[in-house]
Amino acid sequence: MRVLLTGGAGYIGSHTALVLIERGHEVIVLDDFSNSSREAVRRVEELSGATAQIVEADLADRDAARSALADVAFDAVIHLAGLKAVGESVAQPTRYYRVNLDSTIVLLDLLRERSITNFIFSSSATVYGDPQYSPIDEAHPAGVGLTNPYGWSKFMNEQIVRDAQVAWPELGAVLLRYFNPVGAHPSGRIGEDPSGIPNNLMPFIAQVAVGKRERLSVFGDTYQTVDGTGVRDYIHVMDLAEGHVAALEHNTPGVSTYNLGSGIGSSVLEVVRAFETASGRPVPYAIEAPRSGDVAETVADPSLANAELEWRTTRDLAEACRDSWNWQSGNPAGYRA
Amino acid sequence: MRVLLTGGAGYIGSHTALVLIERGHEVIVLDDFSNSSREAVRRVEELSGATAQIVEADLADRDAARSALADVAFDAVIHLAGLKAVGESVAQPTRYYRVNLDSTIVLLDLLRERSITNFIFSSSATVYGDPQYSPIDEAHPAGVGLTNPYGWSKFMNEQIVRDAQVAWPELGAVLLRYFNPVGAHPSGRIGEDPSGIPNNLMPFIAQVAVGKRERLSVFGDTYQTVDGTGVRDYIHVMDLAEGHVAALEHNTPGVSTYNLGSGIGSSVLEVVRAFETASGRPVPYAIEAPRSGDVAETVADPSLANAELEWRTTRDLAEACRDSWNWQSGNPAGYRA
Repeated sequence: MRVLLTGGAGYIGSHTALVLIERGHEVIVLDDFSNSSREAVRRVEELSGATAQIVEADLADRDAARSALADVAFDAVIHLAGLKAVGESVAQPTRYYRVNLDSTIVLLDLLRERSITNFIFSSSATVYGDPQYSPIDEAHPAGVGLTNPYGWSKFMNEQIVRDAQVAWPELGAVLLRYFNPVGAHPSGRIGEDPSGIPNNLMPFIAQVAVGKRERLSVFGDTYQTVDGTGVRDYIHVMDLAEGHVAALEHNTPGVSTYNLGSGIGSSVLEVVRAFETASGRPVPYAIEAPRSGDVAETVADPSLANAELEWRTTRDLAEACRDSWNWQSGNPAGYRA
Repeated sequence: MRVLLTGGAGYIGSHTALVLIERGHEVIVLDDFSNSSREAVRRVEELSGATAQIVEADLADRDAARSALADVAFDAVIHLAGLKAVGESVAQPTRYYRVNLDSTIVLLDLLRERSITNFIFSSSATVYGDPQYSPIDEAHPAGVGLTNPYGWSKFMNEQIVRDAQVAWPELGAVLLRYFNPVGAHPSGRIGEDPSGIPNNLMPFIAQVAVGKRERLSVFGDTYQTVDGTGVRDYIHVMDLAEGHVAALEHNTPGVSTYNLGSGIGSSVLEVVRAFETASGRPVPYAIEAPRSGDVAETVADPSLANAELEWRTTRDLAEACRDSWNWQSGNPAGYRA
């Protein structure tokens, strides 16, 4: 298949591009490079020995996106493009809603015009809000008590996709609800390259381990968990990338929703210790007050994806820490030269 | 105040314009006239003896809207513009989401740039979905089990407004959840002028009474209600218009949400009989199967708006039927000459 990969130069995008190419697909990366690097695509090409067509466009700009894609043929879309920083979304809500919703709307219209029915959408476990139970399956209520525009934009996009499919029954749409992506390609050539202060735990820990930051702040140690710190489901980005390709290859008309997670919860302190082991470096941390909106435990029940997509995670936290450290230590400035 | 009234040439818009002018405000009507008429604005001017500035623009088109409003000064916004046909929204979901969400986002950005903090948004009781109890107060869950993109777009717009206010605390936003607007200005010069087959009950009944349509279809007569037909809260459009002006005049920083309804439920057959009495014409009807998604009863608890906005409905169903008939019989082709 010729696969249009929106946001294909980003963290999840670059790993997904690589897995797609290794599975024999052709990849067209659409990205506006506002928060990603052409160097990531170059390294995917280097690792795979294949070339990836690049289309530079802002997908939320209908005219620009249509014009950029006018002569680009493709059979399927994996839609990862979007703004993703939770804190920034609180400060810039209209920007987040505009970019994240309009890009999906523009894309759905384009697919329908061209009768391209294979559509994979990057959603998030954040749509579950403060979970009523854990492990969380796909039947868990979504869209209740969400705490930021980023999360709402994911939930709204899911609804927009569902409604688009009602109006256009031939569409096959898969909504993938990610848990916490971590790790990097084992080569250490591609990985997560946050700009500024990392929003996510593992890149922050990696920057502490490499000496770029003094210490980790751990927000809360009195949750009802194994050691009082928050428990999350960390999924190796290569497993996540394989999940996208499995969704693409199993897609049928209708809307399907899948959790992509490992099913295993790890506390913040467990991640710290795993990273210290993998890196051989100390990761100093300080306990701070819990953040409002944080929940004690979020762990996936991935059994639906296991069964229907014939996909499961095969990499554990230790491997994610090793690969993350490999990327971080080999690229202390990320993709910047 | 100089009030920008988006969708100001529509049914609710034209009545709101008139009440605003009568209360001493200046009105700027922004409309794209895609589903409304300049004649409505002309008649508002005729009734009020004042002029209303007209800005013709598609608010969902950021550049067009900004350019059209570049030299227009205003102090407050009542945002009524949007697509509103439930059935059409199911068939054209991406159009509904794009127009309804983008127009709100464009407007919020414009308000912030200009530090205009008085914002009234036209929401709908449809955000309550299938009500868990009735009368429905504002604490009733919203956004659960909605059945069409029109309703979802209202719910999403409410969330976008809430998040915009978090990022910009000076904003005073009022979300008005309408129940079922009916009736017309008592002059019979302005009223509801649906294009094609009316989506709403009273204009349909009016067209049956005037001989334009053969009979009314009543969907379901086995609901648990007074006579088995669906019960709704019909609010006279002049009461609704006064509710908007009350919201504008009572607006303070923060987000406030109010039901605008009468608090009185009427069944379909009660409306039929009230209309027959008001018009002196028979309204033949046929019972048909219930429509999926319809609920037995939706009635507002308007006590919060009564208390905080110092507003209440003063017109009953008989008056709404009389005014609707007056409009319909005097303007059998609506605003078309």
